[in-house]
Amino acid sequence: MIVKLTSPYSFLDDYSEGAHPRLLQSLLLTNATQQTGYGSDEYTCEARRLLLSQINATEDEVAIHFVPSGTAANLISIASCLRPYEAVLVVQTGHILDKEAGAIEATGHKVIPVPGVHGKMTPSNLEMVLDRNIFFPHMAKPRLVYISNATEVGTIYTRAELIALSEMCRRRDLLLLVDGARLGVALSADGNDLTLRDLVDHTDIFWIGGTKMGALLGEAIVVRKELAEGFEFHIKQRGALLGKSRIMGVQFTELFRDGLFFELARHANAMAARISAQVARIGWELVSTTETNQVFVAVPTELVGLLEQRIRFYPWEKRETTTVIRLVTSWATDKTEVDRFCRWLETIV
Amino acid sequence: MIVKLTSPYSFLDDYSEGAHPRLLQSLLLTNATQQTGYGSDEYTCEARRLLLSQINATEDEVAIHFVPSGTAANLISIASCLRPYEAVLVVQTGHILDKEAGAIEATGHKVIPVPGVHGKMTPSNLEMVLDRNIFFPHMAKPRLVYISNATEVGTIYTRAELIALSEMCRRRDLLLLVDGARLGVALSADGNDLTLRDLVDHTDIFWIGGTKMGALLGEAIVVRKELAEGFEFHIKQRGALLGKSRIMGVQFTELFRDGLFFELARHANAMAARISAQVARIGWELVSTTETNQVFVAVPTELVGLLEQRIRFYPWEKRETTTVIRLVTSWATDKTEVDRFCRWLETIV
Amino acid sequence: MIVKLTSPYSFLDDYSEGAHPRLLQSLLLTNATQQTGYGSDEYTCEARRLLLSQINATEDEVAIHFVPSGTAANLISIASCLRPYEAVLVVQTGHILDKEAGAIEATGHKVIPVPGVHGKMTPSNLEMVLDRNIFFPHMAKPRLVYISNATEVGTIYTRAELIALSEMCRRRDLLLLVDGARLGVALSADGNDLTLRDLVDHTDIFWIGGTKMGALLGEAIVVRKELAEGFEFHIKQRGALLGKSRIMGVQFTELFRDGLFFELARHANAMAARISAQVARIGWELVSTTETNQVFVAVPTELVGLLEQRIRFYPWEKRETTTVIRLVTSWATDKTEVDRFCRWLETIV
Amino acid sequence: MIVKLTSPYSFLDDYSEGAHPRLLQSLLLTNATQQTGYGSDEYTCEARRLLLSQINATEDEVAIHFVPSGTAANLISIASCLRPYEAVLVVQTGHILDKEAGAIEATGHKVIPVPGVHGKMTPSNLEMVLDRNIFFPHMAKPRLVYISNATEVGTIYTRAELIALSEMCRRRDLLLLVDGARLGVALSADGNDLTLRDLVDHTDIFWIGGTKMGALLGEAIVVRKELAEGFEFHIKQRGALLGKSRIMGVQFTELFRDGLFFELARHANAMAARISAQVARIGWELVSTTETNQVFVAVPTELVGLLEQRIRFYPWEKRETTTVIRLVTSWATDKTEVDRFCRWLETIV
Repeated sequence: MIVKLTSPYSFLDDYSEGAHPRLLQSLLLTNATQQTGYGSDEYTCEARRLLLSQINATEDEVAIHFVPSGTAANLISIASCLRPYEAVLVVQTGHILDKEAGAIEATGHKVIPVPGVHGKMTPSNLEMVLDRNIFFPHMAKPRLVYISNATEVGTIYTRAELIALSEMCRRRDLLLLVDGARLGVALSADGNDLTLRDLVDHTDIFWIGGTKMGALLGEAIVVRKELAEGFEFHIKQRGALLGKSRIMGVQFTELFRDGLFFELARHANAMAARISAQVARIGWELVSTTETNQVFVAVPTELVGLLEQRIRFYPWEKRETTTVIRLVTSWATDKTEVDRFCRWLETIV
Repeated sequence: MIVKLTSPYSFLDDYSEGAHPRLLQSLLLTNATQQTGYGSDEYTCEARRLLLSQINATEDEVAIHFVPSGTAANLISIASCLRPYEAVLVVQTGHILDKEAGAIEATGHKVIPVPGVHGKMTPSNLEMVLDRNIFFPHMAKPRLVYISNATEVGTIYTRAELIALSEMCRRRDLLLLVDGARLGVALSADGNDLTLRDLVDHTDIFWIGGTKMGALLGEAIVVRKELAEGFEFHIKQRGALLGKSRIMGVQFTELFRDGLFFELARHANAMAARISAQVARIGWELVSTTETNQVFVAVPTELVGLLEQRIRFYPWEKRETTTVIRLVTSWATDKTEVDRFCRWLETIV
Repeated sequence: MIVKLTSPYSFLDDYSEGAHPRLLQSLLLTNATQQTGYGSDEYTCEARRLLLSQINATEDEVAIHFVPSGTAANLISIASCLRPYEAVLVVQTGHILDKEAGAIEATGHKVIPVPGVHGKMTPSNLEMVLDRNIFFPHMAKPRLVYISNATEVGTIYTRAELIALSEMCRRRDLLLLVDGARLGVALSADGNDLTLRDLVDHTDIFWIGGTKMGALLGEAIVVRKELAEGFEFHIKQRGALLGKSRIMGVQFTELFRDGLFFELARHANAMAARISAQVARIGWELVSTTETNQVFVAVPTELVGLLEQRIRFYPWEKRETTTVIRLVTSWATDKTEVDRFCRWLETIV
Repeated sequence: MIVKLTSPYSFLDDYSEGAHPRLLQSLLLTNATQQTGYGSDEYTCEARRLLLSQINATEDEVAIHFVPSGTAANLISIASCLRPYEAVLVVQTGHILDKEAGAIEATGHKVIPVPGVHGKMTPSNLEMVLDRNIFFPHMAKPRLVYISNATEVGTIYTRAELIALSEMCRRRDLLLLVDGARLGVALSADGNDLTLRDLVDHTDIFWIGGTKMGALLGEAIVVRKELAEGFEFHIKQRGALLGKSRIMGVQFTELFRDGLFFELARHANAMAARISAQVARIGWELVSTTETNQVFVAVPTELVGLLEQRIRFYPWEKRETTTVIRLVTSWATDKTEVDRFCRWLETIV
């Protein structure tokens, strides 16, 4: 087996490395046990118990299901609770709007864009779009609001913001779904005052991302009991029911048994904060406030090539004289590499 | 972490255990490397190279893609090459007909049953169904023939059978897809004369199952180049593109780098043959010839309860005085347990 | 404009002619009035009032909507009340199984065949199929039973049969849908004891076919209020909401204002009975009892060519020495032509 | 039958009245002939011949099919030529974006908005949106450009504009579809220099609207031969294949046999021009240039109530002190009513 370290160091995303070593150890330890499959294995049951305890909810309130990818989590969650003519509302920067290859539309549903504020859905912008929906039955009926926390630009929802949005949703008969691909870093951010229980109270479905927080794969969908009927069918029908469901059960058990999940998230945030602070120090613009593990920097365009020799990242947007780039940190980001990069940054400006 | 051995011993299926230990070791060894995701990591590329060599084909002939589950492999393969009005033909016992929660129909396509012979599609039965399709444009247009090898009843296609079917398909302008969830045991069966290259020559798409042959998860889809355009989009759109695609790349590399895949398959077949021989010896009927790792036995119904205390299995069909049960072996099936069970069988008849 | 009489005389189907002249007159008379569109015109409202009165139900019990075709009626009705993983049950001869180009599957739903008895769904066969649905969540969930009255082989459901089926449906948590493309001839058959009110009481959705009973086009869907929410959206989304909805409103008003609908149905049945009696007299086998306007006759195969010179019809099935043909009569079938054909029949045997 | 004249006079839309009397006469005259159905009747064949002659094309170049509604025409055309991951591009004011209840998404395809200029797609705006589509395979692949002529704001494409757009489409491997719900008024506008043959040469699919130009219902889809394979299946599968297809055949034959279609269109345009001129005269703003049969006027908000007592129309958009209203004329718009309304307009300002 080739074991190769890719260089330069990568800040491309938060899934560049494999799993946290403790998760792999758990897979090894449990590997030989015989388990039933398709979500009924003992580790998945244990992961459910741990998650229920973490979110401070009971089986009468929510059901928990595991799927292998974020796109699967989104398309299954959305398709499970909409009737054919119902549509999803999402901010302009929202992941499902244009980064999932039309996965939501492939289940038959329209996705309607709403202007975002710092990557977030606001009650007033939501209402503005709803109020334009006046030609019955010619316009698809808005029925579900999709948000991400952390957002696609790295910001987070405060408790007050989530509650305000949730109240607007209830007033307008809308469901609220939180894409939690990066929920770990959101809930571990310095400015965060949201709890997992708040998500139970103020949303209808939310999911907790494992892939971007140290697991090989796996996202845990938490769905209000009233909406959960037949959820297993959806998972199976969309190809997301793994025979060896233990893979996700074992990893989530390890992530949540003693707080590893949040520990890893804090590390990712700390690394981003370090980069962010240095970027500010050298006078480059932070295009979005660094609240979690994503750093959006406007780099003088003539320096982009130099940066590309030093680290890996995605160019995000071309502006007049600068190029916005995205740097992402993770549970696996090496502090030494970060510090070395920060020092190097000083030398080039 | 709970490490628990479930008893009684399970012959429920071929995904009761985790991964073959060598695959987990590979995941550990490669874990810390930084890789790009979504199918572009080095291990996935290496797995592709190895598979191309195994199937004796070039990148100009076929494309290879990895997805996390068999249902994903089937629905993506089928949806990728059909127009909306085109239908799939499958034998009555075929997996996609009624074991995937309507996954094919959920992509918009009709699935048409054809009477099978020993679980296999025959050219004559296929033609009989095609010849009934006479009311244009009122009947969905048959366009793709789906078969499984090994079949759902454990039988295998001979080279002659596959070629005869393939020729009929070409004559009637039909594509041919092979579900290879259990392709390993099929190609490793005593009676097999098919090669992977034959599949390239005589089918349009086939997939090689990893989940049921020692991997944690993963199926490799091999698709004719002419049909492969945009395949990555389909995978993404259906939620089957894993961020950490290395999981599948690493495992398939290990499975195919020195023949482990076929070694494991032969073990599974040998264990099934052992059970099968003993069943015959004690005079119980084998409902389907044991060619691979599935054994279908007609057990006197009054003995089913006793068996359930001794081993785990699925009851398959109730008959007048007997119950057909299915016993499945795998790469992980313990020979000692098999022998102990075989001896015990003698004691109860 | 070419006005051409096609010969030989056609018994191909019940939509060979245009509309009953009274319906065209009504279209002429109302043509110049300005009406709002999309189902809100005064004629559609009037048609709704008349139909409610005919079925002896109130607006609180059912909603009534008009769509241009039977396939539209079926696919909209079915898609409107199923969740993505829910399936439809239909007899082997059922129209939606293989005569609508996969229209139901195109909305995402599996269609499961059930053996029929004289073209009808029986509680016992239904239960047999339901009882095989044991692999949760691998098998699509049966949720709606689709029947046709009159059936595709011209038979009708008695009141007792419908009630028995309806009770089984309620016991097994299934919805019941009646395709009424030929509901007129069914309710006008000699052996009929069903009323429109029975359909309200014992089904969830049924539709009343206009196209096959004297209208240019149009089917009236009657849906239980609890299932009717958002029905207009479904109609619009599937392309079945006509701008000039008055076309269907005007015609249904005329059909139901003084019993024309049933008068036309009785004529169609009487013409079929006449042919049927003559067929019996000359000793040819009636393959299905002639209860409505379809006559299925086993004709000696060597005489089929002769028949084709005399009348138009569909060959239905080839048997050893005979060919089953289908003759269909309608509101427009000319008694003189029927009698002439009957006399001619005698001369050829 | 109630024959009621709704007052006040309606400028709501171009489908407030029934069919042009000559079309109804044709339906009466041909009513008794026996015809085969589902698009194979003689009148539909005749309509095809006439249309081919009108567009100056042969059966080897294009196929022509009739469907009952504009939404059906759009969803069938689009679904017929896209693979599952392919998306549609449309201007922000485009009909399919938000006035068809998600019909396009219900067939599985994403609809991507492009900023329009006077309701029209421009090559440069199109290119701008295409150039943002850089994250393969995460973004649905743009494949078809949808435009309307006349547009939803009543403007028309010049020959040069259409050709420029078509060239951009070919350069970027995009198909071009023209929604011709109002193609009659577009091609009959004073400023028009497009011919039907230009549409054959420079688009892939276009359709000619009957419903809004004097027919009871019916739109004729003209599709390039290379894309037309299996088109009948799509029509059937979506519920748009009428049993009595003659309804559309007879009407289109009458519309195109001696130029009635264009005569009616010119009348509609002339009526709109008359209103438009008067609006300009009294000093109200025309929000969009009146090129066809739609007039968009910014009315002082305090006068809207008064207008509503006098005529019927749709309020389109609220501005600070004015309300934009839409007035639509048609083949049936009464010149006397228009003149009376114009005189009245003078009295209220």
